[in-house]
Amino acid sequence: MTGAHGLRARLLGIDTHAETVVFLRKDCSVCRSEGFTSHNRILLSAGDRHAIATLYQVESDFLNCVEAGLSDATWQALGVAEGDLITARHAPPVESLGLVRSRIFGHALDERAFGRIIPDIVAGRYSALEVTSFITACATKPLAQDEVCFLTRAMVGAGKRLDWHGQVIADKHSVGGLPGNRTTPIVVSLCAALGLMMPKTSSRAITSPAGTADTMETLAPVALDEQALRAVVGQEGGCIVWGGAMQLSPADDILIRIEHALDIDSEGQMIASILSKKIAAGATHLVIDMPVGPTAKVRGAAAADSLTAGLSAVAEAFGIRIKVMQGDGNQPIGRGIGPALEARDVLAVLQGRPDAPQDLRARALALAGGLLELCGKAPAGQGTILASTALDDGRAWSKFQRICAAQGGMRVPPQARHRRALAASHAGVLESIDNRRIARLAKLAGAPYAKAAGIELHVRLGDQIAAGTALCTLHAEAEGELAYALSYAEANPDIFGVT
Amino acid sequence: MTGAHGLRARLLGIDTHAETVVFLRKDCSVCRSEGFTSHNRILLSAGDRHAIATLYQVESDFLNCVEAGLSDATWQALGVAEGDLITARHAPPVESLGLVRSRIFGHALDERAFGRIIPDIVAGRYSALEVTSFITACATKPLAQDEVCFLTRAMVGAGKRLDWHGQVIADKHSVGGLPGNRTTPIVVSLCAALGLMMPKTSSRAITSPAGTADTMETLAPVALDEQALRAVVGQEGGCIVWGGAMQLSPADDILIRIEHALDIDSEGQMIASILSKKIAAGATHLVIDMPVGPTAKVRGAAAADSLTAGLSAVAEAFGIRIKVMQGDGNQPIGRGIGPALEARDVLAVLQGRPDAPQDLRARALALAGGLLELCGKAPAGQGTILASTALDDGRAWSKFQRICAAQGGMRVPPQARHRRALAASHAGVLESIDNRRIARLAKLAGAPYAKAAGIELHVRLGDQIAAGTALCTLHAEAEGELAYALSYAEANPDIFGVT
Repeated sequence: MTGAHGLRARLLGIDTHAETVVFLRKDCSVCRSEGFTSHNRILLSAGDRHAIATLYQVESDFLNCVEAGLSDATWQALGVAEGDLITARHAPPVESLGLVRSRIFGHALDERAFGRIIPDIVAGRYSALEVTSFITACATKPLAQDEVCFLTRAMVGAGKRLDWHGQVIADKHSVGGLPGNRTTPIVVSLCAALGLMMPKTSSRAITSPAGTADTMETLAPVALDEQALRAVVGQEGGCIVWGGAMQLSPADDILIRIEHALDIDSEGQMIASILSKKIAAGATHLVIDMPVGPTAKVRGAAAADSLTAGLSAVAEAFGIRIKVMQGDGNQPIGRGIGPALEARDVLAVLQGRPDAPQDLRARALALAGGLLELCGKAPAGQGTILASTALDDGRAWSKFQRICAAQGGMRVPPQARHRRALAASHAGVLESIDNRRIARLAKLAGAPYAKAAGIELHVRLGDQIAAGTALCTLHAEAEGELAYALSYAEANPDIFGVT
Repeated sequence: MTGAHGLRARLLGIDTHAETVVFLRKDCSVCRSEGFTSHNRILLSAGDRHAIATLYQVESDFLNCVEAGLSDATWQALGVAEGDLITARHAPPVESLGLVRSRIFGHALDERAFGRIIPDIVAGRYSALEVTSFITACATKPLAQDEVCFLTRAMVGAGKRLDWHGQVIADKHSVGGLPGNRTTPIVVSLCAALGLMMPKTSSRAITSPAGTADTMETLAPVALDEQALRAVVGQEGGCIVWGGAMQLSPADDILIRIEHALDIDSEGQMIASILSKKIAAGATHLVIDMPVGPTAKVRGAAAADSLTAGLSAVAEAFGIRIKVMQGDGNQPIGRGIGPALEARDVLAVLQGRPDAPQDLRARALALAGGLLELCGKAPAGQGTILASTALDDGRAWSKFQRICAAQGGMRVPPQARHRRALAASHAGVLESIDNRRIARLAKLAGAPYAKAAGIELHVRLGDQIAAGTALCTLHAEAEGELAYALSYAEANPDIFGVT
């Protein structure tokens, strides 16, 4: 209604995550005539495609007066090519923001409200500040259980949903916060080998040194589309692929980025995040791995029990059978931290090698056993035993190799060129490992971008350590990253608590 | 602790308001070795100056691999020159964010907590997302009265404070939301003429078509420093200057920008915002103008009474005598909306011209009268009468001219080159004026950046309107802006409700 102006699209190649941003010259005729100021929300149109973007005004020459400099997200949302004509005007009010404000001012939201807010977030109609405000409001006045259900349903509805035509679909999720703990490839191989259908979609790392998709990618291709996924699952009963191309609960990807930036994990949002992904993937039976420990994501028994109750209630509302399996979150599981290093742990367990990390083996067997029982493939209390036979007789390893082949061919995880052991400065008993800082150390060494980088642990809690014992080995692809991780390790000698 | 890397400062001239932002090439050695990703908070250092900035990664050639592209706020915070050496590393954790999280998770904050959060915000240690989260948390679980006091004190403490050595200092504030309503220059002139000391600092427009400082600037210089302000006040007993150079409650400037972006005004933050500025300016006696109306900021009696009670209680806790004067907020006050147009209304009232807007005159007299009574210069009920004698006998006009001269010389407000009347499409009674959309119309015409631009109203609520009657005249400095406002007016014929 208030006019429109021609600008030329220019890709600035700026990564702002999901937030759509546009840069315009402060002195351009559009800014002057529209009365735009920085932080305004601007409706950009290119042909019949539209995107709302946050404006930053520019007063220097890297941009000229007829250019609209676009961030990556804006570029993709508009689907333009360099130099395409774009018009800009004030964005119309986003009506659902009134609902967010109403929640801030004390009112609970109903199903219709979440059903309007979430699609607007997915469509990019909210600025990052507005998403932040929504997340904070839902944490400060915690979501009631019905609100969690509404949010979950809205998140599922705002993306694609895989339909398995009434079949039993097994799934597994880890609440996270524990480095290593790469049970998924083992659990999928076991369950598929024992007759469950388990089309597992996983994420890449957001803040951790490796996501399941990062690790699996060192063993086989993971970027499959839905058709390819269905072909693998149809043939092998299971897969381990990256879910990012599937558009399952895309709202979750947006919310989780901002929750990480804020370091806020509210229980209600965590439940909606986990379950919306699983419902969208078509899960009917779900095992949740919940490590509990002082430096894990879930830090104590009270939080664990509350989250377990919440997950169970909401899963039930959606007709999903769920089993939450709390476990020891005091130290990493497995030896490797980082994509390839974790992949080698997975191979060692699947191949039944004597040097395989026993904690990883035990945790994977417990989770697979739980899932087998939940799906009625094993009597209560017998799941782990059933799983261990399929691991020991090579069926799981064989299944894993066939899944890798079906996904595009098995690969050998890369080895890092640069390694350095970290030695204990004094003798004693290993009393603690700081999960957060050991993850940080692995990231400084290059994980997850450098696939071979990370940490190889040589000790476990309770071990007697002599002075000079190697506690772990840093793996890096670049010498600079090795040096970098080393300096962090030197500055943080208490990552390993030896007393 | 984790290394540092050399980059060269480059001013990108990007206005991000207060938020410090840095742009680095994704493939530069710093990003690679530090493991930076977009949205990370980065500690930048140039010599002994430091700033924490939000990182956006760039994958195109407008920036090279040794450049750190800085937003305006980052540039100012670091105090660098083009090409200066900058190092970048991960920002250390901002400890006070733990207090924000603790409030999100249900705990009230004490004085010490606000005393840590607010200085960190002023120092730029919070990202815009983090400030948003703080604001939303304080609105969703409303601030208790003691928290409002702690917040106010922390905001005062994080900036400069004018010391008037125990003198009675009169001040006035309008809660806002009503276009026009430019009473301040009249109130200051009246009060100073009648012997009160009134060193008035005002703001520029944030989202409105004019702030008091914008209007006053068309009549005299307003960008005075503290020394110049003291000289004017010492000589004339009053001044009307821009407060922005004074560093009074700089936290407020940061919080209010984000509150506006979110369209959130919580009562507790509004109280802290108003009172922190006044306490920092040294006010001892304060009159608050609170327009109440359906399209004003305070929309009804309940909100008005609650805000009045809150302001009074917190002002009392700081030893400030306060009088809140609720008033009719159903329509703009005065005829002009926009800096120069409002200035002409002010002059008409001060000069006692017969065509002066009587509503502006009456409101200014009421506020000045209230302040005179509050400060003991007039008996209860006699303030307005006292004020009107000083207006009618020319003392206020004479005082205003002397204040302008002392501030650097009186100016003549500019006139707009382009004007166009908006006519009523049908006959009837004027039943409503939409304050928000009429403000928007004035901004589309160019206000406040184009000083002469805005709206001149010709009608008042209750007027009998014939079809074709001019409801208002648009004033613009550029033809394009005039056309632009016209098209908005055509699309919004119900800004004026004629029935």
